[in-house]
Order: sequence, then structure tokens, then C-alpha cells
Amino acid sequence: MATMLGVVVTDANMAPSALQKALAGVAAETFNCVTVDGDTSTNDSLALLASGLAGNARISGGSGPAFETFREALFAVCDSLARQIAADGEGATHTVSVYVGGTRNDDDAKKLARAIAESPLVKTAIAGRDPNWGRILAAAGRAGVVFDPDEAALTLCGHEVFKDGQPTEFDRNIVAAALKARDVSVVLLAGDGPGRARFYTCDLTHGYIAINAEYHT
Amino acid sequence: MATMLGVVVTDANMAPSALQKALAGVAAETFNCVTVDGDTSTNDSLALLASGLAGNARISGGSGPAFETFREALFAVCDSLARQIAADGEGATHTVSVYVGGTRNDDDAKKLARAIAESPLVKTAIAGRDPNWGRILAAAGRAGVVFDPDEAALTLCGHEVFKDGQPTEFDRNIVAAALKARDVSVVLLAGDGPGRARFYTCDLTHGYIAINAEYHT
Repeated sequence: MATMLGVVVTDANMAPSALQKALAGVAAETFNCVTVDGDTSTNDSLALLASGLAGNARISGGSGPAFETFREALFAVCDSLARQIAADGEGATHTVSVYVGGTRNDDDAKKLARAIAESPLVKTAIAGRDPNWGRILAAAGRAGVVFDPDEAALTLCGHEVFKDGQPTEFDRNIVAAALKARDVSVVLLAGDGPGRARFYTCDLTHGYIAINAEYHT
Repeated sequence: MATMLGVVVTDANMAPSALQKALAGVAAETFNCVTVDGDTSTNDSLALLASGLAGNARISGGSGPAFETFREALFAVCDSLARQIAADGEGATHTVSVYVGGTRNDDDAKKLARAIAESPLVKTAIAGRDPNWGRILAAAGRAGVVFDPDEAALTLCGHEVFKDGQPTEFDRNIVAAALKARDVSVVLLAGDGPGRARFYTCDLTHGYIAINAEYHT
């Protein structure tokens, strides 16, 4: 989370325990996979309120088709809101989606995605539209998980820039032009394991400094 | 470390194992307690070379008065160099020393010091000369260690700004004036435990963005 008070409301008729299970699972993949600068707020919170007025057969368990339908809808709402937090980061000129796959497990993928998404050097490179694969791989290398560049492939805005331990012969001008898009994707495949994760972040620009150095409490 | 190749040379007559022990201990408290932006380089390295030409009685063990004398001299050199790395961070206008004490152990203190020293919100507050105790305590609160604000005292450039769970009645103008100094100290006492640590960092300014967003490899 990144300084947020989130309240999601629904008219579903659903037991509190089922609501809590859905919310915890969805929050882990959405609001807890957002970073603007790595800092958090003491008031970061997310609440889910259900009135029960929809009149559906009460969803009391944490599984089954009705629960899954609700969970998917909740995910769609929270995913959109989480992405908007990154997009609205102080001074953001790019919204960045970092996808990591191929790790031993989801937890390793999350650590890699977070290290990349939080790296000031990666975020300034994106602000400068620089296809700087070295900064991204360096961030991955210090994430605290097993990471072998010889097994890794890196794609920026759909252009593969690194594979099997070396940069590809990509056209720097074409990739730099692709990085002009408001929405930038960074996809790192780290091997052939089943783990995967996604983080949303934004680039780091003069706007961030202006807002946070000049704002006094 | 923060993108560095460090080479320390000495003419001491000393066994490789004793040199290694001294270097590892000193590096842990100096070069490994520096952060500019949290990023590291794949070539970060520190080497210690000894010619043995001093003609002293060979220091073969990793303890004793001669070893300690050498270790203290090595610490002085590495501490100065580590501090210069922080001072020379991209766009730095302040060199910041973060001291943490009173934790259960040194490791907890190091985690608190690192969280504060790496926080972009803390670093922009210092750039803006804002005695923003809230950002510092919020960073401490997410460091992943036991931290109770009610037990904490925070001092900025010698001025106590927070104690026993609340801000002191400090004079904002006086503290803001003190923060004009090139060298800024942040001292957080987190309790009455024996743990302590120190991190060097710098503030985060427009200069960092200019250098890292505009430099392309």
C-alpha cells in the first residue's frame, strides 16, 4: 500500500468470514503489490463492507462458484484501484507494470518484482525512456532470491532486450520510442519454475522531488 | 556499498587470514552501512593489500593489541571512505548520519537505520530542511523489527523533536535552520536495549533525477 484508505462496498449477501478470506487474498495480489517509493503510511487500510441487500443465496463458505465469482469481481475492482495508486504517484509520467515469472515459487517472484519496482535507478531510467536492462537485472540480482542471468529473459514494452545472459541486438531507438507510452511493461522470465508475481509502480521524476521536498507538515 | 571499487593498501606485515578478518568486520560497519538509493552495483568490491614492508612483528592472529591497533586504523580509513560515498551521492546537498540505539540487538538497529536511510520520503524531507519526525518514525515502523513509538526518542541535528510517543514542543524554525548544515544527524533511541548501528546516506534532490534519468548507457 502507499498511503491509502480503501473502502470497497458491495450489496452481496455474504458471511463475514467469507468476505475476509476474499479480501485478504485479493489485497495480497493488488494493494500489497503496489509501490510508489517503498514508503508506507501508518494509516494504510482496506475495508470491505457488505450490506446483503442483493438478495442472493448467502455465500457462507470460502470456496465454490458463488465465492469465486465474487472474488473475481472484487479482484477486478481492487486491481483497478491499485493500478490507479501507482499511476497517481507523485510526479509519475509512466505507470509501470512489472511481471516476473519462472521462479521457484510466487514468493521469490514477488521479491524480484518488488526489487525492480522499488529501484530508484530503474524508475529514473524509465522516466528517461532508457531501455537500461542492466539496471533491471542488477535490481533482480540483489533481491535476495536465487537469480541466474543466464536463465533470464527480459522484455520491455513487448521488445525482448536481454536473453540467456546477454543483451539481444535490439534497436535502441525503437525501444526508446516504445517507452514513450504512458503504460510501460517490464517482463522478467527468470527460469522455468511455476512462480509468478506482478507489481505496479511509477517512474521517478523531478515531480516527486518537488512535491516531497517542498511539502512541509 | 553503492557502486564502488575499493582498494586499501598497507605496509603492515600481517597474515592473510588476519587481514581478512579485520576487513570483513570493518566492511560490515562501514561500506555495508552506506546507502545512496538502495541500489547496488554488480561490481561492488573491496580489497585489502598488504606488502609486509613495515617490518613489524608479523600479526598472525585475529586478536590481541597489534591486531586491534591495525583494525582501528583500517576502520578509520574505511569509515572516512564510506562517508565520502554518501556525501558524493548523485545530487546530494546533505550528508546524513543515521544513528540507532537501544534496540534488542545490533541487527535490529541496522534494520531500523537502513529503513530510515533508504526512505525517499525521509531523504526528500531533509533536502527540504523539514524536521519531519513523522516520516522518520513511519520508516522505522515498517523496518520489520519490534518498534514502539512510545519508547522512542528522536533527535535531529541535536534537537530532540519526538519523545515518549509524541512530538516535543520544538521550535520548527530553529530545527529547520539547523538542517541547513551540510552534515545532518538523525539519532533514534528505540528503547533501552544494547543494540546500535549507524548508516550514512544523503538527501534526495532534483540532482539525483537529472543525473539518473538523463544518463543513458
